[in-house]
Amino acid sequence: MTTGPEREAEAQAGRETRREAGREAGLTALARGLSAPKGFVDASLAAPVPGTISLLGGIPAPEALPVEAFAKVSAQLWQDPDAALAGLQYARPHGSDALRHWIARREGVDPGRVLVTNGGMHGLTLAVLTVVERGATVAVDDPVFPGFLWALEVSTTRILPVPVVADGFDVEHLARRLAAGARIAAAYTVPDFHNPAQVSLSAPKRQALMELAERHGFHVIVDNPYRELRFAGQDQGTEVFNRSDRAIHVNSFTKTLGPGWRVGWLVLPEHLVDPVTRLRNRLDVHTSSVTQALIERLITDDADCFDRIVRGATALYRERAGALVDALREQLPGAFDVMAPEGGLFLWPRLTDDAVDPAALLRRAAAHGVIYQPGEYFEAEPGRGSSARHLRFAYSDRTPAQLREAVGRLARAF
Amino acid sequence: MTTGPEREAEAQAGRETRREAGREAGLTALARGLSAPKGFVDASLAAPVPGTISLLGGIPAPEALPVEAFAKVSAQLWQDPDAALAGLQYARPHGSDALRHWIARREGVDPGRVLVTNGGMHGLTLAVLTVVERGATVAVDDPVFPGFLWALEVSTTRILPVPVVADGFDVEHLARRLAAGARIAAAYTVPDFHNPAQVSLSAPKRQALMELAERHGFHVIVDNPYRELRFAGQDQGTEVFNRSDRAIHVNSFTKTLGPGWRVGWLVLPEHLVDPVTRLRNRLDVHTSSVTQALIERLITDDADCFDRIVRGATALYRERAGALVDALREQLPGAFDVMAPEGGLFLWPRLTDDAVDPAALLRRAAAHGVIYQPGEYFEAEPGRGSSARHLRFAYSDRTPAQLREAVGRLARAF
Repeated sequence: MTTGPEREAEAQAGRETRREAGREAGLTALARGLSAPKGFVDASLAAPVPGTISLLGGIPAPEALPVEAFAKVSAQLWQDPDAALAGLQYARPHGSDALRHWIARREGVDPGRVLVTNGGMHGLTLAVLTVVERGATVAVDDPVFPGFLWALEVSTTRILPVPVVADGFDVEHLARRLAAGARIAAAYTVPDFHNPAQVSLSAPKRQALMELAERHGFHVIVDNPYRELRFAGQDQGTEVFNRSDRAIHVNSFTKTLGPGWRVGWLVLPEHLVDPVTRLRNRLDVHTSSVTQALIERLITDDADCFDRIVRGATALYRERAGALVDALREQLPGAFDVMAPEGGLFLWPRLTDDAVDPAALLRRAAAHGVIYQPGEYFEAEPGRGSSARHLRFAYSDRTPAQLREAVGRLARAF
Repeated sequence: MTTGPEREAEAQAGRETRREAGREAGLTALARGLSAPKGFVDASLAAPVPGTISLLGGIPAPEALPVEAFAKVSAQLWQDPDAALAGLQYARPHGSDALRHWIARREGVDPGRVLVTNGGMHGLTLAVLTVVERGATVAVDDPVFPGFLWALEVSTTRILPVPVVADGFDVEHLARRLAAGARIAAAYTVPDFHNPAQVSLSAPKRQALMELAERHGFHVIVDNPYRELRFAGQDQGTEVFNRSDRAIHVNSFTKTLGPGWRVGWLVLPEHLVDPVTRLRNRLDVHTSSVTQALIERLITDDADCFDRIVRGATALYRERAGALVDALREQLPGAFDVMAPEGGLFLWPRLTDDAVDPAALLRRAAAHGVIYQPGEYFEAEPGRGSSARHLRFAYSDRTPAQLREAVGRLARAF
């Protein structure tokens, strides 16, 4: 197995080769700058042993997705000729009025500031293309959701990593770097139930971050897909984002109604509504009228429907997180620093014994039939080791029994 | 009413003001370069007289859209728990296998070269971002589908207009410009049932265009949304595009299954498959699994279903095109050069009498209760007058009786 820095050097060399070939083939700088897809884990895990329990992906539990409710509203839609025909025709780039109004009420903003997107990643890329100039620097969570770094490649690969500590993105760290002369176009953070670090940004730090952004004139890309999935602790609030003209608040129905819809939204400051809508309109005109019509019916025909879905999902994830934490404490006492999650889909335990090699543990765990994401995968600067001693367990789509069995296998791998 | 060049000068001044303000607000060059939405027609028509017959949009006739067939496959999908759950989860960026295979068979290419998109506009923007470097020049149809110029703004506003003549894009004109030293990153044309010029590119010119592209190393963005809607004449073929590694062949289900789906596809040359897929994955991960699942079921559960839908639509549009052409010849003999369309959604008549002022006619027609697109709207370089004496009538979503009435009103406006 190669080391992190070696792999990074190889990856860099590969990028250079591809860029040269791309230039000759007439590719744009933007297209040449997009890295190849990375596997989530080491290639040796590509063919896991039969019966392997995967804790890889932060995807919704099938039981939490409202299939029957969608079957019902879908039948209603197709039996209503006017509505069905409206679903098959062009719509406005901002999204359907009913959907925007529903979102605006939940967010406490004017509907004119809501733009319906094709999910959270779409919102991130729209934000990057609109406020991150090519080659500019962006402050990012460290550890970071790797998908944001991929999205960022459409404009830049220059980042300023900011540690994610117990109460989230280290705003003071960023303030010191800015005071020392660093210049950024934007800052990126997941404020609620961070991926992968599970923590939430405290209310005072939310305030401090937005004040910093206003003072220095950068935008904050607030990525909030897990927000609804709270099962413990206090909501730290999002009003501070929604009332600042420096925050782009990104959300989606991915973790509540399902990733397959590709429907999400942005809450935009007034001055970005026109530019982002124009860009969105160029990219693919508007989000599917059919998917918008189905989601709109689901969440508006019955005022409690969405909250009921969220309550069901939250109860499921609370139980699963609890089962995972309990199993780790019982079967591997002292092996990890473990903090019980307050919501979201992830546990981010840290190995306590420096003698344990995380890469060797990952391989042994896979041989014993359990796979997870190694912490290094989430390092803002790969190979630096900032997250090397963490593991990310995604518990959302595994039953308590599976989670206990997974921890048993992990214990045998130790 | 201002003249074309005056309006263009005003628009240019407006763009400069917006760009300066955008720079101060932290907008990227890309975002600053996107022009404001333009109305289709003069602002005086924004509130047309009651009962106005609109010939503005090239949208499918409601009667041609397969609502019942979609109701059926939708019920099947939601009653099949495994399929429904698959529709709610993440999918691969390239699109569903079944859909790609179906498209690949129709296109006569390897499925690996097919990328499912969110409709034709998405395909155009992906093509532009991938092969048109910022500030490069692109040869475009003149008259041109204005949506392409909007898409192009994500990279450039530098164009080389190429006249669209009776047998389509004037390849010889482009060859002369290239021989004289012009350099282009790409050429854009609608080869079948051109929007707005209704003509098709002849087979020899398709061949000549691709040879020119291969010799000069540019890509051809082939925009083909109307291809299926032929009701007369000979197919000039698309093999020449699909076998060239210089063509990006853009298509969609918009004109056959409905714009609201936002589902289309690209046929890519091998060397562009990875770059375009990477970009697509960044922009919004993948096209909705739900919309893909529904369309896939519709077109594969019954092998003749799609062709039946196309036959139905084609019969309708043939009848409508015929009614419109007949009415013009009967009620306004000699007023226009009219050519019967061989397919598609548009008629592009040319005023024969130089004494008729097109802008005044547009205003009088609106006052008489009929609106259409003035030719100048499609000029590659607005205000040059290259299409000023044409009118674009979209006949697809109007009945023969409405079309005859529309021509009657136009006759009274003359």
